[in-house]
Amino acid sequence: MSLPVYLDYNATTPLDTRVLEAMTPYLKTRYGNASSRHEYGRVARQAMDTARQQVAAAAGAQPTEIIFVSGGSEANNLFLKGAAAAFGLAGGVVAFSAIEHPCALNAARQLARQNWKLLELPIDAAGRVTRAGVDAALTQKPRLWSVMLANNETGVIQEVAEFAARAQTAGGGWFHSDAAQVLGKQPLDFRALNRTGVHALTLSAHKIYGPKGAAALVVDKRLDLIPLIAGGGQESGLRSGTENVAAIVGFGAACELAVSRLNNLPARLRHLQARLEAGLAPLGATLFGIDAPRLPNTSYFAFADIDGETLLAWLDRAGFAVASGAACSSVNPNPSHVLLAMGVPEALARGALRVSLGVETNEAQIDAFLLALKTALTDLKNLTALRR
Amino acid sequence: MSLPVYLDYNATTPLDTRVLEAMTPYLKTRYGNASSRHEYGRVARQAMDTARQQVAAAAGAQPTEIIFVSGGSEANNLFLKGAAAAFGLAGGVVAFSAIEHPCALNAARQLARQNWKLLELPIDAAGRVTRAGVDAALTQKPRLWSVMLANNETGVIQEVAEFAARAQTAGGGWFHSDAAQVLGKQPLDFRALNRTGVHALTLSAHKIYGPKGAAALVVDKRLDLIPLIAGGGQESGLRSGTENVAAIVGFGAACELAVSRLNNLPARLRHLQARLEAGLAPLGATLFGIDAPRLPNTSYFAFADIDGETLLAWLDRAGFAVASGAACSSVNPNPSHVLLAMGVPEALARGALRVSLGVETNEAQIDAFLLALKTALTDLKNLTALRR
Repeated sequence: MSLPVYLDYNATTPLDTRVLEAMTPYLKTRYGNASSRHEYGRVARQAMDTARQQVAAAAGAQPTEIIFVSGGSEANNLFLKGAAAAFGLAGGVVAFSAIEHPCALNAARQLARQNWKLLELPIDAAGRVTRAGVDAALTQKPRLWSVMLANNETGVIQEVAEFAARAQTAGGGWFHSDAAQVLGKQPLDFRALNRTGVHALTLSAHKIYGPKGAAALVVDKRLDLIPLIAGGGQESGLRSGTENVAAIVGFGAACELAVSRLNNLPARLRHLQARLEAGLAPLGATLFGIDAPRLPNTSYFAFADIDGETLLAWLDRAGFAVASGAACSSVNPNPSHVLLAMGVPEALARGALRVSLGVETNEAQIDAFLLALKTALTDLKNLTALRR
Repeated sequence: MSLPVYLDYNATTPLDTRVLEAMTPYLKTRYGNASSRHEYGRVARQAMDTARQQVAAAAGAQPTEIIFVSGGSEANNLFLKGAAAAFGLAGGVVAFSAIEHPCALNAARQLARQNWKLLELPIDAAGRVTRAGVDAALTQKPRLWSVMLANNETGVIQEVAEFAARAQTAGGGWFHSDAAQVLGKQPLDFRALNRTGVHALTLSAHKIYGPKGAAALVVDKRLDLIPLIAGGGQESGLRSGTENVAAIVGFGAACELAVSRLNNLPARLRHLQARLEAGLAPLGATLFGIDAPRLPNTSYFAFADIDGETLLAWLDRAGFAVASGAACSSVNPNPSHVLLAMGVPEALARGALRVSLGVETNEAQIDAFLLALKTALTDLKNLTALRR
């Protein structure tokens, strides 16, 4: 049986065979603990050093600025809680966009128990954090900021450098940005962002054809974070625990490939995205975020009177893997917080479907998907009509 | 060139080829995000369900009691900080043995910033937490306890069930035990431990021929922990983040193998340990922890006037991989906190070497190691003599 067509690259990506090849020795004979002071340990440590350089190069950062962690959620939690703890019991204001990933939103919400006041930056109809919203927030002098570089649901790119510059001019605050969805889709330059006032970035391997289980917080060394996971003192004391060497090696290899793909992949994805969206319009889709700059691989849309979950299940049976509303959490049955923040009516938000493209996507898959979607809509509208 | 003889199984273990085989499909075509509601996601979710059953079976627990995390350090931090946060700002007393792994010690120490009073349980000369120490602690009514089942350096097994029973009789407290070094070396029965008053256990895959990057906190569901990593709500809300499916599958497979090995492996290791220690005595080694029940694979010793680091480096050059003092942390140059807690003089503690055996260890390796050690001691003693 052939595999379903995968159109959910923002949720996770297949592991590149070259990445798996790079990892394999570390899943076999090179199994040492990178903290061990013998040959097995040194081999593991050297591999991590190389990976750190590869990740740093892809992020436009220095190797010493890379803190390896187990995933993007951990990186976001490490920044927010590690920074909050560094400020001590006094607390302060933490500003974050209303469309952050749940791991940033919920980490911030946990801070509310500890003297932190939450400040949600508003979102415009196109899915953007606004300069006016940032300026309004500045009057409350946030000590912490978290605004993602691009949203995982809409693909909308945020003016993070501009926001960070405004924060810096107004007197500071530690500024973090989740770049998990941007890495590999457009160039990333932490050095330049850092100059404008961005202090930390979240990166994740499994979004760029690397393995699950490796990610990084890129962090300005002037920030003195308190570790989330304390212990043996790995990762400059910021993240203890035996390093997941194979996954980190894979992350490094994936970063190197991601950089090399930037010449061609974004343009190819943009072409496929346009083809998809040209086919969606005649089907009556409302497309979200299209009035803002977006990632080249993400399309987010809904059809009036069609439930997103039902449509997703229909497409799944027909052999197409896409996402509905909140992509990373099947536990949560609520409509997307991103769409609600954009002012999309709840009924329409419940219809949301996300298609995200990647290296293996081709025109034939897009066309087959559009055909299946058309049939699905007819089917589901008939069902709805029968029920009435 | 042949690989060095690996005698550092307590630091990490080679991945069993059968475990890698079980993981491989999830590193290739079965790459879905386990939270995705399509075929790729379901395949990943089902694999995690199976792994959860396998881990639960090895721990004598229910699958619903398994919270997958990225490593043992995370599990220990999750318990201590998650429980402390659950008690709120009031704080309390946290009791832990002086020989806990640095990840438990340092997590507990972080709590001192948050109204928690630290109570270190004393250690006797044989490396044991004492009943008298626990009884003395009870007068301070600890709300949290962390006492490991077996120590990673000495291999000394602690009377955790007895201690937990005393704590429970005296009025309670949440009791955690790090079982990372016990899993696979002797049977583990969380149900029985839970009846005596143990509420949570830490397990780790890479200590039992599974992959780095997967571990578990086994936890009594009556405990209402606050997550360390908040977000999409994975793992019953206790550990958010895209699940490391391949590593979790490997953890499950490794647990199944660990259970099947219990019939023969411990006896074989015990035999090899006896052979090693019979050879160490004539060389003038001081063996640590030998007056207490110990794991069958761990030998910890020192030679007067010989520096452990120097000896380790000598053995490394000769093709033997062992550990010195603090095994998991090459960052820390201090003598082992475990030996100091046992009352070992600092000078002798600095000489400590740990040999930990595993599935691939054989008699020939033990004999070759003893021979190398003898030469090393002669060499190093001559060097010392020359320097004087």
